[in-house]
Amino acid sequence: MTSTTRPAASAPAAMRESVRVSLGARSYDILIGPGLLAEAGAEIARRLPGIRALVVADERVAALHADRLSASLDAAGIAHSRLVLPAGEPTKSFAHLGEVVDRVLAERLERGDAVIALGGGVIGDLAGFAAGIVRRGMRFVQVPTSLLAQVDSSVGGKTGINSPRGKNLVGVFHQPALVLADTAILDTLSAREFAAGYAEVVKYGLIDRPDFFRWLGENREAIFAGGPERVEAIATSCRAKAEVVAGDEREDGNRALLNLGHTFGHALESCARYDAARLVHGEAVAIGMALAHRFSVAEGLCPAEDAAAVSAHLAAAGLPTTISAIPGPAFTVDELMDKIAQDKKVVRSALTFILTRGIGRAFVARDVDPASVRRFLAAEVGC
Amino acid sequence: MTSTTRPAASAPAAMRESVRVSLGARSYDILIGPGLLAEAGAEIARRLPGIRALVVADERVAALHADRLSASLDAAGIAHSRLVLPAGEPTKSFAHLGEVVDRVLAERLERGDAVIALGGGVIGDLAGFAAGIVRRGMRFVQVPTSLLAQVDSSVGGKTGINSPRGKNLVGVFHQPALVLADTAILDTLSAREFAAGYAEVVKYGLIDRPDFFRWLGENREAIFAGGPERVEAIATSCRAKAEVVAGDEREDGNRALLNLGHTFGHALESCARYDAARLVHGEAVAIGMALAHRFSVAEGLCPAEDAAAVSAHLAAAGLPTTISAIPGPAFTVDELMDKIAQDKKVVRSALTFILTRGIGRAFVARDVDPASVRRFLAAEVGC
Repeated sequence: MTSTTRPAASAPAAMRESVRVSLGARSYDILIGPGLLAEAGAEIARRLPGIRALVVADERVAALHADRLSASLDAAGIAHSRLVLPAGEPTKSFAHLGEVVDRVLAERLERGDAVIALGGGVIGDLAGFAAGIVRRGMRFVQVPTSLLAQVDSSVGGKTGINSPRGKNLVGVFHQPALVLADTAILDTLSAREFAAGYAEVVKYGLIDRPDFFRWLGENREAIFAGGPERVEAIATSCRAKAEVVAGDEREDGNRALLNLGHTFGHALESCARYDAARLVHGEAVAIGMALAHRFSVAEGLCPAEDAAAVSAHLAAAGLPTTISAIPGPAFTVDELMDKIAQDKKVVRSALTFILTRGIGRAFVARDVDPASVRRFLAAEVGC
Repeated sequence: MTSTTRPAASAPAAMRESVRVSLGARSYDILIGPGLLAEAGAEIARRLPGIRALVVADERVAALHADRLSASLDAAGIAHSRLVLPAGEPTKSFAHLGEVVDRVLAERLERGDAVIALGGGVIGDLAGFAAGIVRRGMRFVQVPTSLLAQVDSSVGGKTGINSPRGKNLVGVFHQPALVLADTAILDTLSAREFAAGYAEVVKYGLIDRPDFFRWLGENREAIFAGGPERVEAIATSCRAKAEVVAGDEREDGNRALLNLGHTFGHALESCARYDAARLVHGEAVAIGMALAHRFSVAEGLCPAEDAAAVSAHLAAAGLPTTISAIPGPAFTVDELMDKIAQDKKVVRSALTFILTRGIGRAFVARDVDPASVRRFLAAEVGC
């Protein structure tokens, strides 16, 4: 993993970072900084000369950013067309996967050509999955437009769609050829969306970077405001994820640490039927991380003050930390346990959770007793 | 690659072969011999202890063989359920892919559990694709019931479905954990189906095994009749394919040699709209191989007598060798060229064909002039 500053016309060199994801022949760069959208064409053409492309975006992001991306691709001589899909989690469906696949084939793109995902996690996961299965794998470029996508879903090659039976249950590992994270784009996010992405930034501190968690406590407002601290927070997050992914591309081992807060979080999202009005992914992860810490306290693993510090930091960022903070009908413990049992990380019916011995000391617990989880959730559901 | 004889209750030891596909952590065995269906449960349980499974079969194969497979799985204590799909190429569709995926999830199978494909290439490709994308990849066992599947589609990890825009345009590379090829099952095939699979057997001789091609000429009738020569022909074919796959898992290089006859063949199948009454895959490959040899003659690469010997051998096996042998409306050169241009092997608009310098001397030609192909087809279409 290397980090170098890079020259740029539209931003001070100090505000441009590059993170390398080291995966042998599938290695790639994540470029991070304000104004990158305008340079997307040049960066893509330099690395993937001669390609044609299909840009996939949702209607909201397309209206805000697609013309600028197109202008940049045109300037670099990259022939491309655009597919605009509805915004929102339901777009991660089998039907829309078919739509992207068919459009790629209709454009007669070849294996060496690229699908460019311009959007958040939904578009990135969907378009990446399509790129992973058309002609058994074609090139893929991520232009993440949400904080969540910039620090999490655009890095590491996980792609997929949801099933009525659960989130992300269908997909492939398919690495992008390049990730372009324009940090200025994030100014167009709502406060709620930015905070949701910030939950994943906090996660990297909680897994194994206690110093980063402390630094976040001191710089949270600057990160939200869009100073150089934002670039640094995103680059550190990408670097953290890239290191884990490079060590465990297909999630056979420590990559599971990245799921801190996600087993609880996915169950909450599923119980809320992926209704963004009630709960978005980052909020579910925030509650899930708070739950993982409190459950670790209940299991005698983690100091209570660490769990409290986690909740306090998340709350200060505008994030929920309890199940009852989710608006709408209350969830039952049975519903939650049922969703947890359907998690991809279930191995032979034993529950796998990411638990922690304190801030920055997370670990994979592979044989968690379902009865303990049930007892813990019974107390939490009422909170 | 190793080949060892293995003890068996239901067949002489000499009639049981094992071929290893060497792909590092994804290596697996292909067991070949009469009566293997009855031992499927034991062979699976020995290699994949504790798994549960979903058996996927088409209605025709299910009626003939699924109860015997189930009895064998039951005897080995492998809990399983069964999904029966319509027979025929149209089952390799997005809609049926969704059906298999949903059923796997409904059964709550985990990553370590298996999808077992009991059937020919259609079921193997479809079920393997589903196994490759549920939870981003779960275990997969092939029990091929056609000669074509035993010598070709069940080996090498290519999975996929058709698109209205072409055959096998969507899929993933996903290796099986085990392949069980019961050669006695092939007695239930029609003469036309057996001959179609035999085209792929001949292909391995034509690529780089001239001695095998000669041996086939001497033993064709015994192979069709079901003697030990059948086991040997299938084992040699699997070994040939396994060697190529081990050297080039994802078709970046010499794996393309396996497509001898397939660029023309796929175009013919597509023009015939995958109508099995007109043309099945093996027949398309037979015509495609005859065309590849005659085109190589036309290009001054291959002796005319080699092309004649290939056609004579295929014809003796009951296979077609000319475009006009396909019943129904004639194809135009424009239609054929259009389908060829949509082939997965197209790289930057240059046509890639497998051409040959003679029997057993095939090679990848990466820059074939479309005008030459057009001229050649114009003459062939009238033949």
